[in-house]
Amino acid sequence: MKPERLLSSIRVVLCRPSHPGNIGAAARAMKTMGLGDLYLVAPKRFPDAEADARAAGAVDVLERAVTAASLDEALAGCVFAVAMSARKRDLGPPVGQPREMAAKTLEAARQGPVALVFGNETAGLSNDEVLRCQAAAAIPADPSFSSLNLGAAVQLLCYECRLAAFSGQPPQGGEEVTPFASPLAAADEVEGFFRHLETVMTATGFFNPAQPGRLLPKLRRLFNRARLEKEEINILRGILAATEKSTGHGRRG
Amino acid sequence: MKPERLLSSIRVVLCRPSHPGNIGAAARAMKTMGLGDLYLVAPKRFPDAEADARAAGAVDVLERAVTAASLDEALAGCVFAVAMSARKRDLGPPVGQPREMAAKTLEAARQGPVALVFGNETAGLSNDEVLRCQAAAAIPADPSFSSLNLGAAVQLLCYECRLAAFSGQPPQGGEEVTPFASPLAAADEVEGFFRHLETVMTATGFFNPAQPGRLLPKLRRLFNRARLEKEEINILRGILAATEKSTGHGRRG
Repeated sequence: MKPERLLSSIRVVLCRPSHPGNIGAAARAMKTMGLGDLYLVAPKRFPDAEADARAAGAVDVLERAVTAASLDEALAGCVFAVAMSARKRDLGPPVGQPREMAAKTLEAARQGPVALVFGNETAGLSNDEVLRCQAAAAIPADPSFSSLNLGAAVQLLCYECRLAAFSGQPPQGGEEVTPFASPLAAADEVEGFFRHLETVMTATGFFNPAQPGRLLPKLRRLFNRARLEKEEINILRGILAATEKSTGHGRRG
Repeated sequence: MKPERLLSSIRVVLCRPSHPGNIGAAARAMKTMGLGDLYLVAPKRFPDAEADARAAGAVDVLERAVTAASLDEALAGCVFAVAMSARKRDLGPPVGQPREMAAKTLEAARQGPVALVFGNETAGLSNDEVLRCQAAAAIPADPSFSSLNLGAAVQLLCYECRLAAFSGQPPQGGEEVTPFASPLAAADEVEGFFRHLETVMTATGFFNPAQPGRLLPKLRRLFNRARLEKEEINILRGILAATEKSTGHGRRG
């Protein structure tokens, strides 16, 4: 796939951005690196003249930007998402350097839309948001002052993606047998599975929503590590559906 | 020489910056990457409240910034200077990628102060200014929209210098949270889970041992990819056991 095409598969998702100037700066940063798909989750002010001013020649990216009510909505259809997060979270996905994660993002972009997910300027990403991503990237900033401007962080990640797109290794040859794989599942399909699993676990009494503990994040951690494929989602949901049928719980839903 | 020491030998020189906001953004970008020496050649407005605002926690870099009348003055004592310039000039120094030039800059920093030289937001660097540098770096932007914000360009170059100083592995900032992990499950525990899963799938009718197809190998492929941990085996078997209890199938086994 052509590098330009791969770059156009990348969504930049800004979660709850406070300052419209940063939205404009992000749009400009994206466009300089050949990216164009901006998603805004519950922006405080958008559209806004300050965003337009900071976007400079990238107002077209702002005009095409998609505003979403939730991260789930912004990730719909995505086969891979990387959370930008300096903080390590004990149940979160593995945290790597931008360079490494850009390579993984571009690799996944061969199969469908992918996302770089950025948090709010002050609060960053919530645990819930990070758990919706299959990987996390931390910009290796000086530990004593690690607060990058949002637009600058978007610039760095888009730059690494651009480098990865144009110098990616061609697919490895040599193997005589193509390993089995079905396409990666999209974020909304994965969420559908998690909801289904939660329903079944609740019906059987294994999970008590009133006392959730850390069961759900632990299951997310496990299945995000595996990076579920479409066919696997079908199998897992088939197992769950058969359980519901045999317990009778499913008939009500 | 220690990486931090090498980074502190790098001057960021902004030539004739028009917007004080960009000076502040540059200061912030520098500080996040461990740089602190800012030189301003004939800035239009400095000091300025807008610079302070955009610097966020890096006002100390602005306070220590040196204002110079000419590039020569700003480069005094430097053993190596890289001009940021997208344009090729027939008599100019060799133009390379930021990564390559960051490596050369850090190499030179072992011998004395070095400089990253940025031009005016609109006009860039003059030929005269570029000719005072021993190398030039061009950020590999999209040819159709290559105008990076000045602060974003400073961020990229300082990031590459930081990676070069730490040989690609700067220490990650942030809290020292140990990621959650339980020990990896042993082969017999994994096999116990697969047997349990097969039993439940057979009981609910999802799996027919007389016509197995490729269901079991596909499930093995999925869970082997995740590399199951001991605690995860317990969770998964807990889910299965709760299902058996609620279907009544488990009581027989």
